[in-house]
Amino acid sequence: MSFDVLQDKIREKKNPTVAGLDPKPEYVPAFIRKASYEKYGETLEGAADALWEFNKGLIDALSPIVPAVKPQAAYYERLGWQGMAAMEKTIRYAQEKGLFVIADIKRGDIGSTASAYADGWLGKTKVGEQEISVFDADCVTLNGYMGSDSINPFLDVCKATGKCAFVLVKTSNPGSGELQDIVAGDRVVYKVMGDLTERLGRGTEGKYGYTCAGAVVGATYPSDMRELRRRLEKTFFLVPGYGAQGGTAEDVQYAFDKMGHGAIVNASRSIMCAWQKTGKDGEDYQEAAYNAAVAMRDDIKQYVTIV
Amino acid sequence: MSFDVLQDKIREKKNPTVAGLDPKPEYVPAFIRKASYEKYGETLEGAADALWEFNKGLIDALSPIVPAVKPQAAYYERLGWQGMAAMEKTIRYAQEKGLFVIADIKRGDIGSTASAYADGWLGKTKVGEQEISVFDADCVTLNGYMGSDSINPFLDVCKATGKCAFVLVKTSNPGSGELQDIVAGDRVVYKVMGDLTERLGRGTEGKYGYTCAGAVVGATYPSDMRELRRRLEKTFFLVPGYGAQGGTAEDVQYAFDKMGHGAIVNASRSIMCAWQKTGKDGEDYQEAAYNAAVAMRDDIKQYVTIV
Repeated sequence: MSFDVLQDKIREKKNPTVAGLDPKPEYVPAFIRKASYEKYGETLEGAADALWEFNKGLIDALSPIVPAVKPQAAYYERLGWQGMAAMEKTIRYAQEKGLFVIADIKRGDIGSTASAYADGWLGKTKVGEQEISVFDADCVTLNGYMGSDSINPFLDVCKATGKCAFVLVKTSNPGSGELQDIVAGDRVVYKVMGDLTERLGRGTEGKYGYTCAGAVVGATYPSDMRELRRRLEKTFFLVPGYGAQGGTAEDVQYAFDKMGHGAIVNASRSIMCAWQKTGKDGEDYQEAAYNAAVAMRDDIKQYVTIV
Repeated sequence: MSFDVLQDKIREKKNPTVAGLDPKPEYVPAFIRKASYEKYGETLEGAADALWEFNKGLIDALSPIVPAVKPQAAYYERLGWQGMAAMEKTIRYAQEKGLFVIADIKRGDIGSTASAYADGWLGKTKVGEQEISVFDADCVTLNGYMGSDSINPFLDVCKATGKCAFVLVKTSNPGSGELQDIVAGDRVVYKVMGDLTERLGRGTEGKYGYTCAGAVVGATYPSDMRELRRRLEKTFFLVPGYGAQGGTAEDVQYAFDKMGHGAIVNASRSIMCAWQKTGKDGEDYQEAAYNAAVAMRDDIKQYVTIV
């Protein structure tokens, strides 16, 4: 229940990291793209096929070392329904390999609409008398600007299925403060969102003490992260911003509790593009990704010990 | 440029309304669902086919009376890639019938990711040497919780293509105030978001004086809407919440400027489900939708005169 499944997988691999699957075209080695374009031409089918082949290779290489992957919907949606089909296949394949899948969708809408998203991404979609699993991820990311009625429909599905969700609280991007850092009484906006998230999850605590409502807290603002960790005792953190965006292992240590639980750190570019630094034109992308994932795990291990 | 295309279409039809295409299963008449399930079974293909047939009929019926349609992505995504293919077809078909299409996607993410979404929904996706139009809507809705770097990539595509976008400012749902109404200094959060939107659009004013960055402002909070109209002189409004959610024609009049320009009012359920009130099991859904659209236009005409 809640984040137990993910925390168990993290403990098993002694690795609190998630590999982002954000396949920008230039991240995919040329030989993979070439093979797909030869099959399907320079079409959306061709690009989606390249992305799927790349993901499959990454998942094969990474499944022994990382507990989770996080496909970012935008890089699939930009290829239309062909890309969305590749996202579905990627989610399914990663789960078959024992990985926990966080679909990075950042959805948020009014209640009835949020329910439709929740059915598609976490639950089941009713068609006539059938109940069909669609994207069927283990977890999603959400945007709560519209308030609790945009989050609750997802949490309802989480409660019914044992799944979980991360709400954007303090994001890692340069512009995150424009809205999130606004002072509102004795709080700032991101703390309001954090408090709301912890409140909405109440009553769903799993064996590690975390509810099904987690929070996205960027590594690029480590002092904010430290404060949020103290403030939100029952909220599991997804931490973007490590590596290419500037967050360090020293920074991310504050996302974890005393047991080394309660957080997972994302890296996308540094793992997916590790092949660009070995001078082998991507032929070794699997080995390079594996080595980068090991290096990241070991980097974080210096500061975080998982009990 | 900017909202000129939409405003022209509104003036042509003397109707400042947009029909939402949010095809929940129960909105689709049984005879349409039955025909699709007979062809494809009770599958995602079958449900997507029913949704597409229903949309096509609605578009045929509504294109003489409304200037725009607004498909809501959630109801397509819940059917997986099959649903997304139906969304693509719906957008294309509506455009062929002369309608302006607002893709209600409420996306928002860090810069590079927002760019990928913008390419897929408004611009073109690069595949090898090809540039491919994917969803290719005329306009999208956006969530700016992450700040200006989550909005600007969309506005860049708008500037290059003459398209436009609506940023969530003050939404129509019951929980909208939890975050949006928080007092921050001399403003509230939704005004901060509104000011940000107007600022980001600066320099893109079209012939009606509106920039490419519009705002979603719910009809259910009419006094907030009135204040926002005064405050954001160059920001075009998308107004949800009329009809089933409780907003009236009297309420929505405050979204418009003195020329009756600068806003479009959405209705989904009251048009799509008009057939449920005529006792004919949906056989007359096209006529019922048309009549509901006429009634809505005439209702708003009592308070808004379009120059």
